[in-house]
Amino acid sequence: MFQSRTHTCGELRKEHAGQQVTIVGWMENVREVGSSLAFVVVRDFYGITQVVIETEELMAVVKDINKESTISVTGLVRERSNVNYKIPTGEIEVIPGTIRVLGRCTHQELPFEIRHSRNADESLRLRYRYLDLRNPEVQQKIVLRSQIISALRSAMTEHGFLEITTPILTASSPEGARDYLVPARKHPGKFYALPQAPQQFKQILMASGIDRYFQIAPCFRDEDARGDRSPGEFYQLDMEMAFASKEDVFAVIEDVLPPVFETYGVYDRASGAPFVRIPYAQAMEEYGTDKPDLRIDLKVADVTDLLQEIGFDPFRDQSIKAVPVSDCHLTRKAIDKICAEIEVQSGSKAYWFKTDENGAINGGIAKFINAQEDLIPSLTERLGLQPSMLVVLSAGKLADAQKTAGVAVKKLGEACEGHMDKEKYAFCWVVDFPMYEIGEESGELEFCHNPFSMPSGGMEVLLKAERGEIDPLDILADQYDLVCNGVELSSGAVRNHDPEIMIKAFELVRLGEEEVKAKFPAMYTAFTYGAPPHAGIAPGVDRMVMLLCAEESIREVIAFPMNKNAQDIMMGAPSEVEERQLKELHIDVKDR
Amino acid sequence: MFQSRTHTCGELRKEHAGQQVTIVGWMENVREVGSSLAFVVVRDFYGITQVVIETEELMAVVKDINKESTISVTGLVRERSNVNYKIPTGEIEVIPGTIRVLGRCTHQELPFEIRHSRNADESLRLRYRYLDLRNPEVQQKIVLRSQIISALRSAMTEHGFLEITTPILTASSPEGARDYLVPARKHPGKFYALPQAPQQFKQILMASGIDRYFQIAPCFRDEDARGDRSPGEFYQLDMEMAFASKEDVFAVIEDVLPPVFETYGVYDRASGAPFVRIPYAQAMEEYGTDKPDLRIDLKVADVTDLLQEIGFDPFRDQSIKAVPVSDCHLTRKAIDKICAEIEVQSGSKAYWFKTDENGAINGGIAKFINAQEDLIPSLTERLGLQPSMLVVLSAGKLADAQKTAGVAVKKLGEACEGHMDKEKYAFCWVVDFPMYEIGEESGELEFCHNPFSMPSGGMEVLLKAERGEIDPLDILADQYDLVCNGVELSSGAVRNHDPEIMIKAFELVRLGEEEVKAKFPAMYTAFTYGAPPHAGIAPGVDRMVMLLCAEESIREVIAFPMNKNAQDIMMGAPSEVEERQLKELHIDVKDR
Repeated sequence: MFQSRTHTCGELRKEHAGQQVTIVGWMENVREVGSSLAFVVVRDFYGITQVVIETEELMAVVKDINKESTISVTGLVRERSNVNYKIPTGEIEVIPGTIRVLGRCTHQELPFEIRHSRNADESLRLRYRYLDLRNPEVQQKIVLRSQIISALRSAMTEHGFLEITTPILTASSPEGARDYLVPARKHPGKFYALPQAPQQFKQILMASGIDRYFQIAPCFRDEDARGDRSPGEFYQLDMEMAFASKEDVFAVIEDVLPPVFETYGVYDRASGAPFVRIPYAQAMEEYGTDKPDLRIDLKVADVTDLLQEIGFDPFRDQSIKAVPVSDCHLTRKAIDKICAEIEVQSGSKAYWFKTDENGAINGGIAKFINAQEDLIPSLTERLGLQPSMLVVLSAGKLADAQKTAGVAVKKLGEACEGHMDKEKYAFCWVVDFPMYEIGEESGELEFCHNPFSMPSGGMEVLLKAERGEIDPLDILADQYDLVCNGVELSSGAVRNHDPEIMIKAFELVRLGEEEVKAKFPAMYTAFTYGAPPHAGIAPGVDRMVMLLCAEESIREVIAFPMNKNAQDIMMGAPSEVEERQLKELHIDVKDR
Repeated sequence: MFQSRTHTCGELRKEHAGQQVTIVGWMENVREVGSSLAFVVVRDFYGITQVVIETEELMAVVKDINKESTISVTGLVRERSNVNYKIPTGEIEVIPGTIRVLGRCTHQELPFEIRHSRNADESLRLRYRYLDLRNPEVQQKIVLRSQIISALRSAMTEHGFLEITTPILTASSPEGARDYLVPARKHPGKFYALPQAPQQFKQILMASGIDRYFQIAPCFRDEDARGDRSPGEFYQLDMEMAFASKEDVFAVIEDVLPPVFETYGVYDRASGAPFVRIPYAQAMEEYGTDKPDLRIDLKVADVTDLLQEIGFDPFRDQSIKAVPVSDCHLTRKAIDKICAEIEVQSGSKAYWFKTDENGAINGGIAKFINAQEDLIPSLTERLGLQPSMLVVLSAGKLADAQKTAGVAVKKLGEACEGHMDKEKYAFCWVVDFPMYEIGEESGELEFCHNPFSMPSGGMEVLLKAERGEIDPLDILADQYDLVCNGVELSSGAVRNHDPEIMIKAFELVRLGEEEVKAKFPAMYTAFTYGAPPHAGIAPGVDRMVMLLCAEESIREVIAFPMNKNAQDIMMGAPSEVEERQLKELHIDVKDR
């Protein structure tokens, strides 16, 4: 009799009829039907079981118990005459001999109904998270999170990766976000920082001779909350491989993620290996975003040369992008609504025209196009115009026109039947990011993303740029983004493991060895002692779980999340501390 | 060609002879034998391979490379004429066509020799941890740690436990140690605390309906370093079960730990289920410790009644304990040395006598015993005296005499052949701890250990004590320690899940509801909403790994440990931070 029961509340079936059993769980509900007849629902982690009270004596016992108390029920399993097909134990009921209270709920009223906790005010849910979590629908997300992480761990281990835990109390890492600091009791005036990511440690592990590292790594960034970021810690499936190129990283990810997504996700299909690879410039051009959602079959076409001079004012001197949608039967009203949504989300207007069942162009800006009859054949060819199509257009500076077109692709994919294969996980790699850009403020050459990615072509290409033989803006970084259904799961890169190439890469932006050393002293020194080429990635665990659960709020996939204001209102964190503690830590509170 | 190699450095065998291969790794050593003959050792994570240089051209290449640079070697596998049986690849060597440098080590001198890093100064090892970790002997412990944790996780998952991560930025938990604090940017004057253990969270998870929880949980206590405790974080295999008694917890631990210990430990035998259970009082009496090492077959006997009045001054009015050792052939010098060690470790003198091959008592304090001839039969019976025995004695207040005898058991077990079956993992449970004690300072009734363990007998026994029907000192807590080879791996307990019993337990020590609420507000409130009885334990991961690796220093089983002074000298943590950061966190540094 394990855990004081013979069976869980999800276990009993017809074939148990006639057996004496003990179940334990929460008394979820009591439905009184008469003075000696009541139906009691007992819930545990595994399910619910109906208990039928048939004596006045037991009725008195049950009436004395508040809902949500934990009870132990010993009795006989009986086959039900009217089977409840909605629950796995619906074939049976338990006729109790004894009912014992194990943990009394002393409250006659709960802050919210357990089964409807998702409708309760969020602050109430967070304050009484233990009641919220009793709701099977809420609990299931946390169970799923645990199963997903466990499956990821198993897969990584099977692929020969070692999970190595790196320090949580450590030094500030220049990931660009704000650090959480911890005053050091033994070192007055000094502070530990919680790691923004174990980036330096994993690269140092590569220089330490570890071949394949991974970690479900807690990361800490003191940033304000967002829809997909909780204050406090978040988790990454951090991984790195020695002597590796991006092909090695891609092969592992393409092998590890799809089965986990198919098994645990709301959709049961995922892209197989190899994932589509899209160069950054092409992604911006064809999808209007570097996070394309490949479940949508729509693409962006450039029509600048064709439509700039048709006399439509907003197009004059602008880049113009078009998203053609075949077989589209939206009403004008629906089209206007979509265009309005696009404008709200992208900040720029969207325009449109359509073709009727005969192929004639009409609606929206049609009259400007129809006025330039000689353009129509080229436009037809460029956009593959056929009867019954919708074309949504954007105009502006190149980046703005692309962005608006990108939003249009997304909205149209969702709205136009037949253009989105929604129920699957469509992965892709975005590759070939530029290494440098012209800084908006400085007007000078700056690093685009991570200065510690390897420039494609290594030292040679940097020297060419230095000698003026190529434009530094044309240098690509050996960096890649993993995207799934339009969500960026992670950036990764082949790292720059060579101190000389590092310094040269910094010299191109008017910095040098001093800056490299200042930014990552331990890693830089480690690399001077012989480092392997290495590459890695760190898909966000919380984001993956959100995708798999189809949840919009990150707080639904964390057992004990903070609220948006960075408070744990259940535990009362953060809180004031004693003067004695501050004294030991050599700090004072200001502005109190 | 995965990770830029065709084979790892541990992979090539005789059957690969004649194949063209590429290996990558660190150039560990070069042994020049002539102007065009040298033996190069290449090392990667998986092993080492010998590369033979046979041309002046390649000799020039190799001579230009500092040791510990990473290289890629492409060449032909050749069977060796003189096999090196010490290494798995000793049957072959690689004759390179090309050698390419992948990551140059720019230092001609290393801070220490890689293969002998364990002999280097510890601060040097920690500063250059990435070089220290290249030493296969050092690296192996970290690999083993990873494998052990992975095996523990798999076993827990197989037993139906869910790994649920609990918050790291949270509220202070009154575990008794000092908290690490994190100033809250958005809440001036308030602080998060890093969890000393996820104790409250796991109990709240039980009240949330989770049935079997576990976590490889990071725990944080701002305490000074000890041999088995590193500053900063440490890890526990934290687990908790709902509706459970200690039998359920024991069954899981007895199923999970022994196979992991047998597979990954230096010894390949471990106790099977059920582990021996020893009540606390009996452990103190028979082993002189609550952490008995059951690999030793020696036990402590009480001889107070027999020897108190034999006229030996140190025994007068004292408790006297004896540790009889059969078949002991230590010299007097060896015995004196052991007694001296016992005194150093326990702080109290140890005494002794022995029996010769005829059974006559002699040596040490023999003359006092022999003077009381009528005592000898009782003493013989009590201690099972036979020829060739050693008896070591301790005297003092009961606790001191027990403690000294406990140290004697340990020392004698190690020193006397045949009394210690060293090469195994002997587990036991120490159970039935007292719930209350008389405080040394207060002279009043206080909690012994954890006030939140369930008193054995529950409310009834507390009421009896309140009514004066039993001595509260006789109340036992449903608490247990897991001990292996004399090392305490963890305390665990059946928790007190009933607010009424909690308050009553506090009332016996002159406290009440207010104190309960103040200590664990969230947990207490959660329990008023109906909690299941629950029990758990949290074996220390670091301690288990130390036992399995047979390492005395905790720093050998952590990838990036802090030094004893709570510094990470490789990363430079803790460090000073910018004034801007302090300002954002609303704190000032004092005593700077």
